[in-house]
Amino acid sequence: MRVSQFPLFTLKETPADAEIISHQLMLRSGMIRRLASGLYTWLPLGLKVLRRVEQVVREEMNRAGAVELMMPAVQPAELWRESDRWEAYGPELLRLKDRHEREFCFGPTHEEVITDMARNELRSYRQLPVNFYQIQTKFRDEIRPRFGVMRAREFLMKDAYSFHIDQASLAEGYQAMFDAYNRIFERLGLSFRSVDADSGSIGGSVSREFHVLADSGEDEILSADQGDYAANTELATSPGPVIEPQAPAEASKQATPDTETVAAQAKHLNLPLDRIVKSVVVMADEEPAVLFISGDDELNLIKAARALDAEDVRLATGEEALKATGVPKGFIGPIGLPEGLAVRVDHRAATASNFSSGANEKDMHWINLNWDRDVALPATADLRLARAGEPAPEGQGTLRSSRGIEVGHIFQLGTKYSDSMNATVLDESGKDVPMHMGCYGIGVSRIVAAAIEQNHDEQGIIWPQPIAPFQVVIIGIGMDRDEAVREAAESLHDAFQGAGVEALLDDRDARPGVKFADAELIGIPHRLVIGKKSLANGKVEYRGRRDSENRELDYAGIVDTLVGKLGD
Amino acid sequence: MRVSQFPLFTLKETPADAEIISHQLMLRSGMIRRLASGLYTWLPLGLKVLRRVEQVVREEMNRAGAVELMMPAVQPAELWRESDRWEAYGPELLRLKDRHEREFCFGPTHEEVITDMARNELRSYRQLPVNFYQIQTKFRDEIRPRFGVMRAREFLMKDAYSFHIDQASLAEGYQAMFDAYNRIFERLGLSFRSVDADSGSIGGSVSREFHVLADSGEDEILSADQGDYAANTELATSPGPVIEPQAPAEASKQATPDTETVAAQAKHLNLPLDRIVKSVVVMADEEPAVLFISGDDELNLIKAARALDAEDVRLATGEEALKATGVPKGFIGPIGLPEGLAVRVDHRAATASNFSSGANEKDMHWINLNWDRDVALPATADLRLARAGEPAPEGQGTLRSSRGIEVGHIFQLGTKYSDSMNATVLDESGKDVPMHMGCYGIGVSRIVAAAIEQNHDEQGIIWPQPIAPFQVVIIGIGMDRDEAVREAAESLHDAFQGAGVEALLDDRDARPGVKFADAELIGIPHRLVIGKKSLANGKVEYRGRRDSENRELDYAGIVDTLVGKLGD
Repeated sequence: MRVSQFPLFTLKETPADAEIISHQLMLRSGMIRRLASGLYTWLPLGLKVLRRVEQVVREEMNRAGAVELMMPAVQPAELWRESDRWEAYGPELLRLKDRHEREFCFGPTHEEVITDMARNELRSYRQLPVNFYQIQTKFRDEIRPRFGVMRAREFLMKDAYSFHIDQASLAEGYQAMFDAYNRIFERLGLSFRSVDADSGSIGGSVSREFHVLADSGEDEILSADQGDYAANTELATSPGPVIEPQAPAEASKQATPDTETVAAQAKHLNLPLDRIVKSVVVMADEEPAVLFISGDDELNLIKAARALDAEDVRLATGEEALKATGVPKGFIGPIGLPEGLAVRVDHRAATASNFSSGANEKDMHWINLNWDRDVALPATADLRLARAGEPAPEGQGTLRSSRGIEVGHIFQLGTKYSDSMNATVLDESGKDVPMHMGCYGIGVSRIVAAAIEQNHDEQGIIWPQPIAPFQVVIIGIGMDRDEAVREAAESLHDAFQGAGVEALLDDRDARPGVKFADAELIGIPHRLVIGKKSLANGKVEYRGRRDSENRELDYAGIVDTLVGKLGD
Repeated sequence: MRVSQFPLFTLKETPADAEIISHQLMLRSGMIRRLASGLYTWLPLGLKVLRRVEQVVREEMNRAGAVELMMPAVQPAELWRESDRWEAYGPELLRLKDRHEREFCFGPTHEEVITDMARNELRSYRQLPVNFYQIQTKFRDEIRPRFGVMRAREFLMKDAYSFHIDQASLAEGYQAMFDAYNRIFERLGLSFRSVDADSGSIGGSVSREFHVLADSGEDEILSADQGDYAANTELATSPGPVIEPQAPAEASKQATPDTETVAAQAKHLNLPLDRIVKSVVVMADEEPAVLFISGDDELNLIKAARALDAEDVRLATGEEALKATGVPKGFIGPIGLPEGLAVRVDHRAATASNFSSGANEKDMHWINLNWDRDVALPATADLRLARAGEPAPEGQGTLRSSRGIEVGHIFQLGTKYSDSMNATVLDESGKDVPMHMGCYGIGVSRIVAAAIEQNHDEQGIIWPQPIAPFQVVIIGIGMDRDEAVREAAESLHDAFQGAGVEALLDDRDARPGVKFADAELIGIPHRLVIGKKSLANGKVEYRGRRDSENRELDYAGIVDTLVGKLGD
């Protein structure tokens, strides 16, 4: 391709409204342009990268036996009412009405549509397992879209949905997708990590996120330094620092005025934080519950939701806490709570001895409490936020922190949608059974931005080979005046095209410096410069995008040399 | 591909709500399923065909030098207000509001978005000409969607937009697209015709439609039998039958009670219809005008709009006609109309002599009127509806009628959008000039349905080779029991795949009759049947989809034989 036929829209200045590097570089390199908040046009250069990612995803989905189809972007509200998500999904769901005032949405995901298709078309266990996928423009009406295509409102997504006769088959299909995802991100040339994660509004119990690792990533990942354990902080687990056991001492109530906070309580009682068990009142689907965690730990609300089997858990207000327990915040404790109030204790807090806790009276705390001796141990659960530096689970050493950008998520949905939408098949014995479902998403457009966050320098983007818009850029110094240079450049370009390597010949009437800068900005992995003098010696100048020096290579055979590099 | 890995969703019964054959066959063959009115899921089989069409379109657009990009589906209302189409477009435009109550639409077309991009990115004549295209899901909120994907609400479209420094360059770019479109429809293996057409709500003056020819087509096409003239009836032109000249006779007013219709007038005055010039009152953009056409002709409203330079022309009501002329309908004529009222006379009516017309008095008509002698000839225009059997223009013989399905439309837009949206570039002299634009659409999903309307029989679809979902279907008789047959079928399948030919191996546990019927229904061009006996003789049974008989071919070398056929 020649620049004269493939217009570049590079910018010298960094647009002011772009906060993160991938957004800045995508604008500067002319990959995207903003149409409106969260809506971007993919210019020719950007689309080329997007298509490369898309193609790798498609090939690996096909290889894994998934079958491509294409569902409508616009979906009828009735289906979302069947699954109870029309109200539940929140304002991210772009709702709209057609000319007949019928309600629809611009789909952010397609569980309802595919389940409707499956219940109509799949009748027998003989048709299972099957995995349908599509690569499609989706819409999520973000309240504050930002970071360019990283968190856009319109985005390209690969979504796949598998149907199974039972949980065992679902587990197999899920594993096949897990493997396919690993192949996809490997083939894309990205450094990535899969982690345990929360299933969120999609539902189901087992799920795994795929993250492209980048310092600028929004998500914190904790991974074991001696094993393969890795999880999003929102779900990462650790036993935490050991709480030293104490020889049992006598429990007593202490007057503790003005000690609403754990810090004040610790100071007043002269206790380390891990000898305090704090009581956190939460509202779980608007029902109050009390959670006990160690004074030096933080509550993880997502774990709390799992422990309480709730859709949504939030901290209670002071008023709500008072209403639920009869006690002002800061003085709530395990002894003497109202009957019927849900309570849970974190695994680590359950190991505390001679601990202090609220006495369920204003300005009073217990000290030297011991579980079971002074109060029955409530049901235990993993409630604490795990932190880097803490022990990894299963003796896999220590948790290390890294940052990632979520680009894929796979879920075992079980029968959540097939139950609510009555998607059944006949099993071998002729009985109607709900299908087990999995769903598997990849943020195709987001991968492009994530790849840049991971691979860039001062000069611009550094594309991993497999998703580079062009493999090679050819620059002829003074090629508008020097016939020999022009001819060499043109024939090199054609030879690369002939060898199936996409080469960009910069045939603009511009200074070499401009061409060098643009080639670096748009991140083409290999650069060949043809100058009059070196050409006379049968040489061209080569520079890899990550190299700091030029190298002279023989003009003859350069195509083979480069093709060799591309195979690396 | 094996059917066990590529599920077919064929139906025995024709769904009751499918009115046309392509819709019926797309449902029966399992290409599509209806999600809601005008919204269809493309099942794997249908998507394969859609992608083939898409790929041919993409390759030819690239070959013609157009550059692919991707614009958002959701577009801000402000841009449509700039071009004055937000109100003008009508209820087909799916308008919606985001969570912040900002107005958007789901784009049915992208002139505004691309013009906005162009005015931001294109600054100089040096960047022109350039042609951007995309292949994208679009939405048109049809009042009554029907005929499956033929007139769906969500559909796949290729839309291209070219930008030029002047009209001459636009004409060149338009011609390049005209040529590309011809190549596209040729490569798709379809019988098609390009015709002159009206530009409708898109705008511009020059446009050409591409039609796939099919008896079931919604549009009538008139084409010359001795030349290349062809036009949509809405725009076709013909001088019409010759009106015999008469020796001038004396004009006089005649009492003609109860002769509001042309037929009554002709009968009362004993005149042939072509000696009557009728006066048709129309409302052109809500302003009245009087059009004179021959008594045996029909007014073409689209031509009337062109003649009056109006966006929209409709017949006036009796009241409106009375208000505009002061005369009741049926007695309006050219002599004595109010000053300032727009009038036009059709070319053919302008050749009438000794004609009768309304006298602009109730119950009175003139006879023996002659233009210029009795009343000045108004501005002439082509206003009559042309009909099959009439002379073609430019002496190209006679107009013949055929029916077509519109699948493409190319337009010279001129400066319609660049004027209203202020999209200018600097010309060679450094002056700001509006860019000239062309736009070029292809209904990618509609082509699939149109191809079926053109190519089917009692048994099902007959795909043109280039867009068939699979080239060859392989059926092994009793292959679940006979190892030799299975092996032959499997190795044939693999050999075809190796040769780059997409073969479908029907490995279902089903009777041969079911497999034959499905293969014909889904329209695979070539069928190979492997039976135990013929295989023992080194033979396979071959049948082309349009053949009425089987032929025995040698099993050895069958792949080469078929590849030879595919090259035809």
